[in-house]
Amino acid sequence: MTDIKPIYLQKVKQQNMALILQKIWEHETLSRVELVELTGLTSGTITNLTQELIQLRLIRESETSSGTVGRKRIMLKYLQDRYLIVGLDIGRTSYEVVLTDLTGRILKSVEGNIVGIHDPEKVLDLITPHLETMKAYAAGKGSPIIGLGTSIPGPMDKKIGNLLKPPNFPGWEGYPIQSALEARFGLKTCIEDDARASALAERWYGLGRKVQDLLFVTMGMGIGGGVIMKGEIVVGSNGLYGQVGHITLVPNGAVCACGNEGCWETVGSIPGILRRWGGGETIDDFFQAVNQGDVKAAECLKETLYYLESALTTLFNTYDPEVIVLGGRLYPYLTMHMDEIRSRVKARIYAFAQDRVHIESATFGASQNAVGAAALVFGELLAKPLQMLPNYLPQETP
Amino acid sequence: MTDIKPIYLQKVKQQNMALILQKIWEHETLSRVELVELTGLTSGTITNLTQELIQLRLIRESETSSGTVGRKRIMLKYLQDRYLIVGLDIGRTSYEVVLTDLTGRILKSVEGNIVGIHDPEKVLDLITPHLETMKAYAAGKGSPIIGLGTSIPGPMDKKIGNLLKPPNFPGWEGYPIQSALEARFGLKTCIEDDARASALAERWYGLGRKVQDLLFVTMGMGIGGGVIMKGEIVVGSNGLYGQVGHITLVPNGAVCACGNEGCWETVGSIPGILRRWGGGETIDDFFQAVNQGDVKAAECLKETLYYLESALTTLFNTYDPEVIVLGGRLYPYLTMHMDEIRSRVKARIYAFAQDRVHIESATFGASQNAVGAAALVFGELLAKPLQMLPNYLPQETP
Repeated sequence: MTDIKPIYLQKVKQQNMALILQKIWEHETLSRVELVELTGLTSGTITNLTQELIQLRLIRESETSSGTVGRKRIMLKYLQDRYLIVGLDIGRTSYEVVLTDLTGRILKSVEGNIVGIHDPEKVLDLITPHLETMKAYAAGKGSPIIGLGTSIPGPMDKKIGNLLKPPNFPGWEGYPIQSALEARFGLKTCIEDDARASALAERWYGLGRKVQDLLFVTMGMGIGGGVIMKGEIVVGSNGLYGQVGHITLVPNGAVCACGNEGCWETVGSIPGILRRWGGGETIDDFFQAVNQGDVKAAECLKETLYYLESALTTLFNTYDPEVIVLGGRLYPYLTMHMDEIRSRVKARIYAFAQDRVHIESATFGASQNAVGAAALVFGELLAKPLQMLPNYLPQETP
Repeated sequence: MTDIKPIYLQKVKQQNMALILQKIWEHETLSRVELVELTGLTSGTITNLTQELIQLRLIRESETSSGTVGRKRIMLKYLQDRYLIVGLDIGRTSYEVVLTDLTGRILKSVEGNIVGIHDPEKVLDLITPHLETMKAYAAGKGSPIIGLGTSIPGPMDKKIGNLLKPPNFPGWEGYPIQSALEARFGLKTCIEDDARASALAERWYGLGRKVQDLLFVTMGMGIGGGVIMKGEIVVGSNGLYGQVGHITLVPNGAVCACGNEGCWETVGSIPGILRRWGGGETIDDFFQAVNQGDVKAAECLKETLYYLESALTTLFNTYDPEVIVLGGRLYPYLTMHMDEIRSRVKARIYAFAQDRVHIESATFGASQNAVGAAALVFGELLAKPLQMLPNYLPQETP
């Protein structure tokens, strides 16, 4: 008689389950007694709900001997590979599809080039066979895929799942990405812009177990930001919170696709660097010229690093995060300069806060967006386990 | 036997009272039936707690005829003037003390000049007689003062109530402002930096009934920001969230007292304008020169407005607030230019979001900081009524 159970009770049950899942995620492994302490739920509720989560095969028991001599304790931890997640990153010039387990471990991964393809349907046609292969692989293992997370250039209208008008992303304006993907693959689909997805990769699978407030900055064809505060992604009143590429850095600077002028993105993104340099077509050309001692390229790099240092200082002063995490296609070219950048940013921050300036590299490197896309689904699972796993609910015992 | 009542129950009671007070604040007036609907509390709890709040003389009953013919309803609203609040603003060159009722209405107000006085004790000596006069006035009316809110240049260490090292505020580094004020006046004392206090004035007494996400920017001797998200002030991981005066606007610009270079504050504050102009001592001199057609002053004003426009665009792109509210000593000189600034900022924001760009003037003008200081105490009262009014608790009936 589950379906006539009052909705309210289902909601409370889901909230309590979410709390348990969250605590196990935070600590990686917990006993039922520890769960009672950490959640404030009764031991009866913990016994029932953990039993149900075990039947759902989201978590499992494991026996460990505790610190004191030889005594065995039953610990609970995630069952990593019963359920799988697909993470899809659609970028301006390439895509990546990953199949991950619940802990963000990549089981399968494929990338492709979409330079010059501006028709969303054609892009999805290219992605479809890879996604079908992953579905078949998961089916072969008997591991259900619980959802498809998607990372794509924003801004977007999350309520209806459509893109708005992402800068430098011709053909995608107004595209109903969420419903198009759901129709193609029959999977629960979550969407988020690339920078926020990357931030969520850190939040769930990277630095986030230790850090509650972080800013992720992705630098590539554009520059974007994703802000996590108290463990939650911040979206703002119009979904535009954290457009860090669009801070004004250059007075009377170049007009940006967003409408602003002198944005960091106009000088600090890959196209911004190439425009200022004027000596080649690709970012590889640019860094090759730097390495070959090209004076103009060296000057342009120096300026690029100065803009990066100025932008990071601005972002510490506006968001006051515990850590800024850097990633994106441009970032690997800059890592050798990060020690210098770190010390220069510190020198530009209030003296009493300098030792709290932390700048780190993206945990998942080039796959950050795609892992973040998977993390989107993981976050939904932790928040709403009963809604995300409706077909796997155990029979209730009366 | 109140004192052996489990702390937990007191906590739940206080939380429920806080919820009731918050809802009455939001709607200005509510019936008990509406409170049951809005809070989810039982009608028994609402009856008991509103009775206690009436005994505390925080709220009162008032009879209104409802929309339908002639039927009388008992409504609940704040009892404005049973309790009073003192708001104290200590600025870099002046102070203001206000006595307000619970709704932020100013009953008494006094200002004074402290130019050249860099000893905190001497500043407090000047303020003391005014504050004592207000205490006597409140005592004469039989209205207890529930607390002293204080607005002062930040940054500060809120945990211990000491200032850190506020830029351009010599003599105050490390000053234990909270304990010094408590010792002098024997009032519960809350402190906050001036920009956040101003934001709280809007949150509780200004635009905040309609708006949940706002950014207050104060421009004067410095430039500061206070961010309200979902009705709460945001402080960040080191208390430095919202240092909007310290966004980098000028590449290779002047070094700021904060350590950064090219900060908005270095060019857009009163000292920043005077430094760039180089033609006089005070901001009045500057605007007089502008009015008299001084070419250099006119050019400097144009540049100042361009920096303001650039900074506001940056702040919409980083914080995505529903509204940016502007205030501070410089702002009255700029109001005649605000229509122009508004339309230029809109032109620099994503096209689809332009009609959501709102820039407003501080509700309380020159008294914004002092009213905000009072709002600090009001916010505490709404969050923790039992802690803020320990001496006025009604006898519990067994």
